[in-house]
Amino acid sequence: MNRGKIVCVGLGPGDPEMMSVKADRLLRNARHVAYFRKRGHPGKARQLVNGMLHAQVTEYPMEYPLTTEIPHDDPRYIAQLSDFYLDWQSRLTELAQDQEVVVLCEGDPFFYGSFMHLYVRLQQAGIAQVEVLAGIPGMVGCWHATGIPMTWGDDVMSVLPATLADAPLREHMARSDALVIMKVGRHLNRIRTLLTEQGKLDQAWLVINGTMSDQQVMPLCNAPERCPYFAIVIVHGQGRRPANDM
Amino acid sequence: MNRGKIVCVGLGPGDPEMMSVKADRLLRNARHVAYFRKRGHPGKARQLVNGMLHAQVTEYPMEYPLTTEIPHDDPRYIAQLSDFYLDWQSRLTELAQDQEVVVLCEGDPFFYGSFMHLYVRLQQAGIAQVEVLAGIPGMVGCWHATGIPMTWGDDVMSVLPATLADAPLREHMARSDALVIMKVGRHLNRIRTLLTEQGKLDQAWLVINGTMSDQQVMPLCNAPERCPYFAIVIVHGQGRRPANDM
Repeated sequence: MNRGKIVCVGLGPGDPEMMSVKADRLLRNARHVAYFRKRGHPGKARQLVNGMLHAQVTEYPMEYPLTTEIPHDDPRYIAQLSDFYLDWQSRLTELAQDQEVVVLCEGDPFFYGSFMHLYVRLQQAGIAQVEVLAGIPGMVGCWHATGIPMTWGDDVMSVLPATLADAPLREHMARSDALVIMKVGRHLNRIRTLLTEQGKLDQAWLVINGTMSDQQVMPLCNAPERCPYFAIVIVHGQGRRPANDM
Repeated sequence: MNRGKIVCVGLGPGDPEMMSVKADRLLRNARHVAYFRKRGHPGKARQLVNGMLHAQVTEYPMEYPLTTEIPHDDPRYIAQLSDFYLDWQSRLTELAQDQEVVVLCEGDPFFYGSFMHLYVRLQQAGIAQVEVLAGIPGMVGCWHATGIPMTWGDDVMSVLPATLADAPLREHMARSDALVIMKVGRHLNRIRTLLTEQGKLDQAWLVINGTMSDQQVMPLCNAPERCPYFAIVIVHGQGRRPANDM
């Protein structure tokens, strides 16, 4: 029977004060901390816990295989990534025999989180004890950055990756009251055009680097031509509410 | 210039350990705490902070007007509710002149939260300083209760109130990868029928009283005939992921 375990900790949207009490305690006491990063980068999750880790911590940066030369849907890339996960599955399982390993994850780990690929493998192997702690999803931090309530009463909210084709984006934009459009990056102009078609441009906000120190929040109609990958478009629901509310 | 303020604190899904570090500190130090409740009930938000409040706290239960006799869309009910919000808007504004008032809110206050009706009124009045702290939304706690990742890669996730008519529910169920269906209660059988139509019954989970001590989690196909109002149906996204993941 293993005495250790793997705990993936949702770090929330960025501000260390917005981590859960439990995440904060686990992080400050952790002796083994793992996190994903691209080679040559500090790692976004790791940056969020700057100044919080124990002096005697051992860090395990899990560096994604280099991907600039092979497209992400190429079978060679998929095989490389599969090997990468298999390698870390076995290393974390080994460690978790008698140690507690904390894995860092931005936002909420189960909501588009990078840990899930490892999680399902660890579950299938069934050797290590694995726990996952919820965090405030990044999009929640972003809608708070606008200072406007997101959903009311019977509003339908849809979360849409901007990478989808025009047709499904148009359908969801038309049928949902509140919208969160993620991974906007190079799709900014297309998203703007589609929202304009749907008569929703005036209700849309752009949040760049949401909840980080360099956060920018603006009505989408005032947005520049380009924006970084970590940008999110938000359309707030108007919902059912008492007649005098607005 | 006011020296006080109103801070609405998102309490997260229920477990006090999952509140943010900032929420925890504000709550333990607060001298004035307000929360909504139905007359004759302790109040769900208030129950979540049992044992956390300061010995010298003053509590302000904001009791909704009695609503059993008048339908919620009746102008008389809307007028009563409007008077209720106006009354508390003025009482909290008065207090916030020289005190910090903490308002409790389950989950995330901007995500279908009861405080927003008061928030927009306070903002319009523009007298009191008002802050809102994000929390982990209840639905995030519920998908963690299933132990299964919620969304991957390019998944579309839609949040649907079960109170919607069949046609829009059917459309969203067909077009979205991941689903969160809220306020299931008396709509349980209708939701089950619609998900069966869409071939999604086998992927659906029912979470009753999610993240509370009396939480129940089960595949929807094993669910009983009836369930309480605070029940949520979850369909996890399958998303884009490395070929060997499942």
